Amino acid sequence: MLGRSALSAAGLAAGSIAPTSLLATLSPNPAPGRTAPRIRFGVIGINHGHIDAQVAAVVGGGGEFVAYHAREPELARPFGARHPEARFVDDERRILEDPSIHLVLSSIVPSERAPLGLRVMQHGKDYMADKPGITTLEQLAEVRRVQQETRRIYSIMYSERLDNAATVRAAELARSGAIGKVVQTIGLGPHRVHPPQRPAWFWDPAKFGGILCDIGSHQFDQFLYFTQSTTAEVVAAQVRNVRHPEHPGFQDFGDAMVRGNGGTGYVRLDWFTPAGLPTWGDGRLTVLGTDGYIEVRKYVDLARKDSGDHLYLVDGKGVQYLDCRGVERPYGRLLVDDVLHRTETAMTQAHCFLATELSLRAQGTAHVVSG
Amino acid sequence: MLGRSALSAAGLAAGSIAPTSLLATLSPNPAPGRTAPRIRFGVIGINHGHIDAQVAAVVGGGGEFVAYHAREPELARPFGARHPEARFVDDERRILEDPSIHLVLSSIVPSERAPLGLRVMQHGKDYMADKPGITTLEQLAEVRRVQQETRRIYSIMYSERLDNAATVRAAELARSGAIGKVVQTIGLGPHRVHPPQRPAWFWDPAKFGGILCDIGSHQFDQFLYFTQSTTAEVVAAQVRNVRHPEHPGFQDFGDAMVRGNGGTGYVRLDWFTPAGLPTWGDGRLTVLGTDGYIEVRKYVDLARKDSGDHLYLVDGKGVQYLDCRGVERPYGRLLVDDVLHRTETAMTQAHCFLATELSLRAQGTAHVVSG
Repeated sequence: MLGRSALSAAGLAAGSIAPTSLLATLSPNPAPGRTAPRIRFGVIGINHGHIDAQVAAVVGGGGEFVAYHAREPELARPFGARHPEARFVDDERRILEDPSIHLVLSSIVPSERAPLGLRVMQHGKDYMADKPGITTLEQLAEVRRVQQETRRIYSIMYSERLDNAATVRAAELARSGAIGKVVQTIGLGPHRVHPPQRPAWFWDPAKFGGILCDIGSHQFDQFLYFTQSTTAEVVAAQVRNVRHPEHPGFQDFGDAMVRGNGGTGYVRLDWFTPAGLPTWGDGRLTVLGTDGYIEVRKYVDLARKDSGDHLYLVDGKGVQYLDCRGVERPYGRLLVDDVLHRTETAMTQAHCFLATELSLRAQGTAHVVSG
Repeated sequence: MLGRSALSAAGLAAGSIAPTSLLATLSPNPAPGRTAPRIRFGVIGINHGHIDAQVAAVVGGGGEFVAYHAREPELARPFGARHPEARFVDDERRILEDPSIHLVLSSIVPSERAPLGLRVMQHGKDYMADKPGITTLEQLAEVRRVQQETRRIYSIMYSERLDNAATVRAAELARSGAIGKVVQTIGLGPHRVHPPQRPAWFWDPAKFGGILCDIGSHQFDQFLYFTQSTTAEVVAAQVRNVRHPEHPGFQDFGDAMVRGNGGTGYVRLDWFTPAGLPTWGDGRLTVLGTDGYIEVRKYVDLARKDSGDHLYLVDGKGVQYLDCRGVERPYGRLLVDDVLHRTETAMTQAHCFLATELSLRAQGTAHVVSG
């Protein structure tokens, strides 16, 4: 439960808008075996299935899920069935204006995430968006301005790092110096298209921002995080639509080289995962250091394991395989800490925005390779 | 043995200088179990250990190794001990001017390979160089001119494709349409430095041409071959010296994005292979197609096999692991065919030069990332 002294020392004093909601009563009787919730949160917009992982992260970190809003009854019904603990509200204002709610989560259509985030912050609440969390540089400028003004948290759940146990472990190893100085990262993010399951916005770059903005944002986040870069530029970027001519604005391939003050990186995205792969994508991360390297096989280890969380570490002493199932993914817990203590332990705000800025600059400057 | 009719129809007529050497007598009595040699070859310059693989390829393809020359007695002695079938000659002219020798191989210091190749072609013989086969654009222009003029073969043994069984198999699969249309390749070429075993030229970019020219040339070859590109450009390139400040001209990291008329590619090279890897480098090739992808683990399969030749194929039907040990690497055989028949089956001359041109252009335009 919240201590008043912690709130006044670390919490209220830090924000330009007081998080009055922190003073509200939390559920007094948690279920047996669960710790008492530390904050209350709501959901507005559930257009991408990532919302379930976002909710799970915050619940796991000590959040109490109390209310949700979605415009689409066909999405709201099954979501509500999966989350009976939360109540449906028919207007987002019933969440934005509820003083007991500290944090709002969203996986609304990507181009609407920043406008919603502005409303959330302007109502004195913190925000956690699915990626891409922002789809244009204009949105980014406005989000940066309002975040500075309100001192609310605008977090983007770059789940291919934050919600993947092997990648979390890789980050710990790299930060501990296990591979010397990090020189470069390569991030591969292949994805599978299921056309029957994809809504119209999925195909419209004005809605999802383009491949480097959308599924690319994970990769720019990883590059910055592993190289510990605080400034970075796009060296070159390309996008292409190879086999979806029926969706002329769609991009099924994209790649980019980037350079930061802590190292360099290459990222590649595609929508070509073949039907024979036992999961949606063979996501990989290679972290090259001066004294070793790490390869993460995030979701599958070809012809070995159909499940994920595989880490290979090569250093001066030998080759190790680390099964990372069970490694804690602390993002949700740290985000709840940050909501309470006005800290930046889950992700610094500067990093969150710089990853998005890189993805938007790559997208904006990408050479369009003819199909 | 050579048939006169084949020579006159396909051989002599094609060249502007007659390969008179083809008429010379070959050893009449091959060892039991070996087929009779089809051509005779010599070696000039053995500064890189790759020469043994070059010799093995041509012997395996039907060549008879008859003579070698090297300026360095300390290199010539152990080489001669490994190749008692060939005689040492104290002047390269004894090879160049020997009418019975059809083909000359070399792994002389890289910057001397093109000048030597010019002399070889001007003596009416074909040439096969270790990579990098040419270290400057000026050399390349001269080599192209003399090759056109003499119609001799100037082959470069890009061994990470030509001498790796899994990569040969990957090429067969890709060409057969196993992964649909090839969209992109990623080639990773990490290498190990053994400073005590490296001669002075290894550290001098004027001698080895730079990292993208040297160990990068394999990668540009693979990119062109797998995408079947006949024209290509460098999108971006970088080089860096991270941890060899005692050799200021050396580059221990390099990467590049390339774009061809058959697809795009990314290549990365480094000299950071850690001591704990059971081989000199964890070379990888990923070929992305519209309907599947191939990953080649050339020399090691981390924590699974310390030996090489591993291929993973993912397509519409599933995931397959192919152990490619024993797959024929036909380069030597085809090169001997080409010497005999004036054909281009081992590698087209245009491809050979374009791969080198790309590597030289990447090297020449590379951004130097500060250490």
